[in-house]
Amino acid sequence: MSSKVSPLAPTDVPAMPMIAGVRLATAAAGIRYKGRTDVLLVEMEKGTTVAGVFTTSKCASAPVEWCRDKLKGGSARALVVNSGNANAFTGKSGKQATALTAQLAAKAVGCKPAEVFLASTGVIGEPIDATKFDGVLDALALDAGPDGWMDAAKAIMTTDTFPKVATATVKLGKAKVTINGMAKGAGMIAPDMATMLSFIFTDAPLSASCLQALLKAGVTDTFNAVTIDGDTSTSDTLLAFATGAAAENGAPKISRASDPRLKAFVKAFNAVLADLAEQVARDGEGARKLVEIIVEGAKTKVSARKIALSIANSPLVKTAIAGEDANWGRVVMAVGKAGEPADRDKLSISFNGIRVAKAGARDPSYNEKEVSAEMKKPVIQIKVALGLGKGRDRVLTCDLTKEYVAINGDYRS
Amino acid sequence: MSSKVSPLAPTDVPAMPMIAGVRLATAAAGIRYKGRTDVLLVEMEKGTTVAGVFTTSKCASAPVEWCRDKLKGGSARALVVNSGNANAFTGKSGKQATALTAQLAAKAVGCKPAEVFLASTGVIGEPIDATKFDGVLDALALDAGPDGWMDAAKAIMTTDTFPKVATATVKLGKAKVTINGMAKGAGMIAPDMATMLSFIFTDAPLSASCLQALLKAGVTDTFNAVTIDGDTSTSDTLLAFATGAAAENGAPKISRASDPRLKAFVKAFNAVLADLAEQVARDGEGARKLVEIIVEGAKTKVSARKIALSIANSPLVKTAIAGEDANWGRVVMAVGKAGEPADRDKLSISFNGIRVAKAGARDPSYNEKEVSAEMKKPVIQIKVALGLGKGRDRVLTCDLTKEYVAINGDYRS
Repeated sequence: MSSKVSPLAPTDVPAMPMIAGVRLATAAAGIRYKGRTDVLLVEMEKGTTVAGVFTTSKCASAPVEWCRDKLKGGSARALVVNSGNANAFTGKSGKQATALTAQLAAKAVGCKPAEVFLASTGVIGEPIDATKFDGVLDALALDAGPDGWMDAAKAIMTTDTFPKVATATVKLGKAKVTINGMAKGAGMIAPDMATMLSFIFTDAPLSASCLQALLKAGVTDTFNAVTIDGDTSTSDTLLAFATGAAAENGAPKISRASDPRLKAFVKAFNAVLADLAEQVARDGEGARKLVEIIVEGAKTKVSARKIALSIANSPLVKTAIAGEDANWGRVVMAVGKAGEPADRDKLSISFNGIRVAKAGARDPSYNEKEVSAEMKKPVIQIKVALGLGKGRDRVLTCDLTKEYVAINGDYRS
Repeated sequence: MSSKVSPLAPTDVPAMPMIAGVRLATAAAGIRYKGRTDVLLVEMEKGTTVAGVFTTSKCASAPVEWCRDKLKGGSARALVVNSGNANAFTGKSGKQATALTAQLAAKAVGCKPAEVFLASTGVIGEPIDATKFDGVLDALALDAGPDGWMDAAKAIMTTDTFPKVATATVKLGKAKVTINGMAKGAGMIAPDMATMLSFIFTDAPLSASCLQALLKAGVTDTFNAVTIDGDTSTSDTLLAFATGAAAENGAPKISRASDPRLKAFVKAFNAVLADLAEQVARDGEGARKLVEIIVEGAKTKVSARKIALSIANSPLVKTAIAGEDANWGRVVMAVGKAGEPADRDKLSISFNGIRVAKAGARDPSYNEKEVSAEMKKPVIQIKVALGLGKGRDRVLTCDLTKEYVAINGDYRS
């Protein structure tokens, strides 16, 4: 947790409403950090369904493996998140630690261990002492209440510079339902790599398979379209929980994601995901600029995504943005290295709406002074038009600054 | 060209011998830099064969397209290299500039334009005024001599901090043949992206197809196993020339790369490529550490290469090395994100021969103090043993420092 808040932090922080069937509590268990909360317990009513998406890493953490396995049950009663120790690459003891944590939480909440979901973030390779959770989780279960969403968002932070929350209310049938979300960032982190953790809660009565389908579709253009440095955590976890409590107010029970009654809900759900994902980009380690990359005219959307990610992950593009330099030559380079269909002589490139290159060469009408003024702004849009087809995509990232190197070059100790 | 030489620069710079049939000259044409040479002309005797490998970029520069086309002829009489302007993304005018440069060089040397090879490095997207070469190339042709290899290596530099040359002599049949090489680096460069350019010369009598096969095989574990920041230039060019002059001393004419008489030659040829490639890594922008990454026990060599590159290109691994931190958690992360077969519980990781992790967890015998002392050294070896098969590979890179960001965040102007 940095003392200096990112200059890109949102200025409007929403008041987080309650969600029927969800209670939260936080504590300072001293896992690694001193003088701050580092454990979150979320209790959910019976009947809560759960969905999740996880890191694609081949070396996933023990909690990720636990959650993947327990998702099969489709039912959740508790979520335990700790910051400070990722419990990744900890061998057998890591697996034992997840099982023990789930047991302790199950006892505290009064459910089966298989209904407990776990997420950890922090240092890799350090054994975690799960017995530390013993008294803590019992106390948290007694303490849990419907408020405290901001406290929860703070407890899961590592080197994030601000807590990340988002909320939406929407009609499902004739009833009002609420969606709350929180995230911690991919701002890459001392003492170790960051992890993107995010948790979404709703009182809408959705089946587990419906929720899973919504989540999987929702991340494509939100969390999966954000990159800070192209590095993938062993612990990335996004879980969604639906308590179903809104059924009491007449919300219809929905079992299929294609149900037309979900239309407004899906829009709001995706907006919460998009809001949180953008906050993650705004809190990239050392970030001074939010960078939106739009690629259009590609052969396909998939091709546009690959090119956009190639630009977003290019150290040369990212350092140019940090230097407030509209260096479109580096954008050409990143398009070229993506390996996707591209015709140099059809390419055009704009920065914040000002076209600097077209038809394979510098745009003759391009005014360096005008572009330079745009590059000083905190949000930079790079638009690349390939002129080949209708594929379009959008990716968010941030600039690469000396502060990123300083933060990540620091000792673990 | 930086005023501060990389701390990783080789201390032994070889005396470069002459190569029969090769004459060189440099000049200051004022393409972009002031007060330094920026054009190199190399003249080669009739009968010189040529081979080349180039960037995989889909947006290759005009000179790369020129060379690719002219390689078909297999014959070379001149090489013109300019630093300061890459002539990339310059549209029709770029194509015209290459044709004009080749014409001017052909006139100066007395050959066909199709026997002239071209390479450019520097800013992208700025039209190049090839008429500047007019008088210059004539004067260079008059001035060209068999010495001046270091001057040539200097003239092709951009933000390189030292000239890169290598040489070897070896027996071919009963005759002595020489191989000389020079390179400029992928030290990423203000005012724009770097480019890896390298030129190899020999007096061995090799057919163009034989030379091409040797070059293609030779780059796999040398130039293609070096990465600075994962960014690919639009202009990367490696050309090899064989004058055949050693035939006069009795060297046999060789037309197939598989000819057993080539055995010692191939070894020396690859050693020159490896030497130059390592110098490129040693001159990575802002580099303070040379990093050798060895992956063994992978399913295949291709899989080992992918994992090694994932580690080498990870900003989190590179910043940890800059911070002299044996952060093996980030190495695990980079293995995991490579998408190649890996079993977390079989993985072991060493830094400079000290094993820090084994069997999916921290090595209990690992001594932090001992490793910390190793991490202060200028050369760091990271070895990852996957325990799955016999695939092994090696990649060179450098650390990611604040200086890299400073160099590449500077304005183009």
